[in-house]
Amino acid sequence: MLPTIKWDDKKVIMIDQRKLPLEEVYVECFDYEEVAQAIEKMIIRGAPAIGVAAAFGVALGVLQIKTRASLHEEFERIYLRLERTRPTARNLFWALERMRDVFLENNKLELSSLQQVLVKEAINIEKEDLDTNKKMGASGKGLIGDGDSILTHCNAGALATAGYGTALGVIRAAFEEGKSLKVYADETRPFLQGARLTCWELDKDNIPVVLIADNMAGSLMQKGEISLVITGADRIALHGDTANKIGTYTTAVLAKEHGLPFYVAAPLSTIDFEIPDGSQIPIEERNPQEIREIDGRLITLPQIEVRNPAFDVTPARYISAIITEAGIARPPYDKSLSLLKNKIIDND
Amino acid sequence: MLPTIKWDDKKVIMIDQRKLPLEEVYVECFDYEEVAQAIEKMIIRGAPAIGVAAAFGVALGVLQIKTRASLHEEFERIYLRLERTRPTARNLFWALERMRDVFLENNKLELSSLQQVLVKEAINIEKEDLDTNKKMGASGKGLIGDGDSILTHCNAGALATAGYGTALGVIRAAFEEGKSLKVYADETRPFLQGARLTCWELDKDNIPVVLIADNMAGSLMQKGEISLVITGADRIALHGDTANKIGTYTTAVLAKEHGLPFYVAAPLSTIDFEIPDGSQIPIEERNPQEIREIDGRLITLPQIEVRNPAFDVTPARYISAIITEAGIARPPYDKSLSLLKNKIIDND
Repeated sequence: MLPTIKWDDKKVIMIDQRKLPLEEVYVECFDYEEVAQAIEKMIIRGAPAIGVAAAFGVALGVLQIKTRASLHEEFERIYLRLERTRPTARNLFWALERMRDVFLENNKLELSSLQQVLVKEAINIEKEDLDTNKKMGASGKGLIGDGDSILTHCNAGALATAGYGTALGVIRAAFEEGKSLKVYADETRPFLQGARLTCWELDKDNIPVVLIADNMAGSLMQKGEISLVITGADRIALHGDTANKIGTYTTAVLAKEHGLPFYVAAPLSTIDFEIPDGSQIPIEERNPQEIREIDGRLITLPQIEVRNPAFDVTPARYISAIITEAGIARPPYDKSLSLLKNKIIDND
Repeated sequence: MLPTIKWDDKKVIMIDQRKLPLEEVYVECFDYEEVAQAIEKMIIRGAPAIGVAAAFGVALGVLQIKTRASLHEEFERIYLRLERTRPTARNLFWALERMRDVFLENNKLELSSLQQVLVKEAINIEKEDLDTNKKMGASGKGLIGDGDSILTHCNAGALATAGYGTALGVIRAAFEEGKSLKVYADETRPFLQGARLTCWELDKDNIPVVLIADNMAGSLMQKGEISLVITGADRIALHGDTANKIGTYTTAVLAKEHGLPFYVAAPLSTIDFEIPDGSQIPIEERNPQEIREIDGRLITLPQIEVRNPAFDVTPARYISAIITEAGIARPPYDKSLSLLKNKIIDND
């Protein structure tokens, strides 16, 4: 299992995803501010992994509270700091809300007991995420046929989660049951998650992977070399509109044009049941320098204006199915996603 | 005017397009082998510019012939060397064929006279290309409206031609007549022609340009921020199927999905009247290292398999119009392109 993020006594250890695949460097965070900055700088990224990191961030923050006197005030400060790290991934807010609920349920406890309860909850969130991904793999693997060539965008793998992955978890599950398959990984500019992270992960697991530039998927589909598309998600609205890494929408349009299935794999914690459609998903616009530079070196003139939206929204009508840990949702998604959510609640 | 390529007595000078925009370095070629390598290494690129370079290469080669004894044999060697530099751009073969026709018409002349005729012909090809682009701009500028935002892919500008450009020539002509416009330039991995060349050219001319990653155009179209697409072409088949830089096909699919016009701007020398459709256009697959590296530095593990097709084919049904120096061709293209060709022949 890849060590995306781990709790280690009074610190959090995460692999520095900016340095992969050429360097495997680990970053240690001793307080919530360091975790917040790690999320902002994309030392850790991927919606479920951001959720786990935020939960650990809350735990670290609460561990540093010295007296009950300012407990609620301090908790609020920690919460608000972590909440404003990145705006799009639903899992960040989901994890923070869950930690707050546990905090509120247990805030009459002695401080040290409350601290232990919150550390335990954060570790549970991490463990559950791994379990969720395994279930998602089991749910979705039947959608992949023997001999399929699968396009994926960005990294929705072990590195984007507590382990195993969402989109790559489904691919792993299909591979583990003996299916012959090939993954085409879009390099995913500007952060190159496909080239750097997806290729590294799949190569470690001996899953055949072919790296392509983002602009090549259309041509490969035209030639019949892609069977289906699977991506992860950062936030899914009630009716199924899905925010995911910039470029995902283009792969969905291409899939539609070529009559190929387009699947999204995401845990229920990525679904925002509060917002009906994608128009209300906040889309992060990141530092323009990420577009002007690659690996710290300019690829254009420094004065050139750029756009750098980190995500786009794929409307539900392009999505063949949403694969979750509770099963596969098909359109209409407001109904199918709500049913899956209730199924999980009933099982708990 | 930008100095893409120039004949200078017994040598050819070209700007090194691998080094732009951060370094403006010129390369001098003294024989046809150096020109052939400059084309292969993409020191010079862009279909019309490759055609001009090949013509100059023939001229340099013929200048080095010492006696009439082996004239035809030597000419054939020069021709074949330049012919196998890059397979897709029609203009390469068009320029070589034109130089061979002039060679054959004049091969009874004294060697020194024949050499002068061929140098003159190559210089004519260069001058005509610039003139052709100006005419193309005049033909196509009416397709751009005041206030339009134009997506372009790769570099179909002054640097891809003897000057002024094909797609960027049309944009320049619209800008020169006072239209307010904005150009979105796809960065165009792996060679980054958009980020490096298109942004540099347009910035020099004070034409507003915004650089985006290749995977962002779909999202911008979805938000209504793009009015139309214009690209160049490397080879156009009789029925209008167009080979151009990898990723062009994706922009055409996106344009169709969003109801936007998709225009191709190319001289008649890019049209291959001998082949009916795009299935017969040879597509170059370049060195895999271009995908694994950016600027000489690995972005993935060295053992990762990659694909690196340099071009894709956009079927004619996605193309709203083809802008040429003789006017605008509309579907069906076999008829409209043939009419434009005859119009040029009649005018000569």
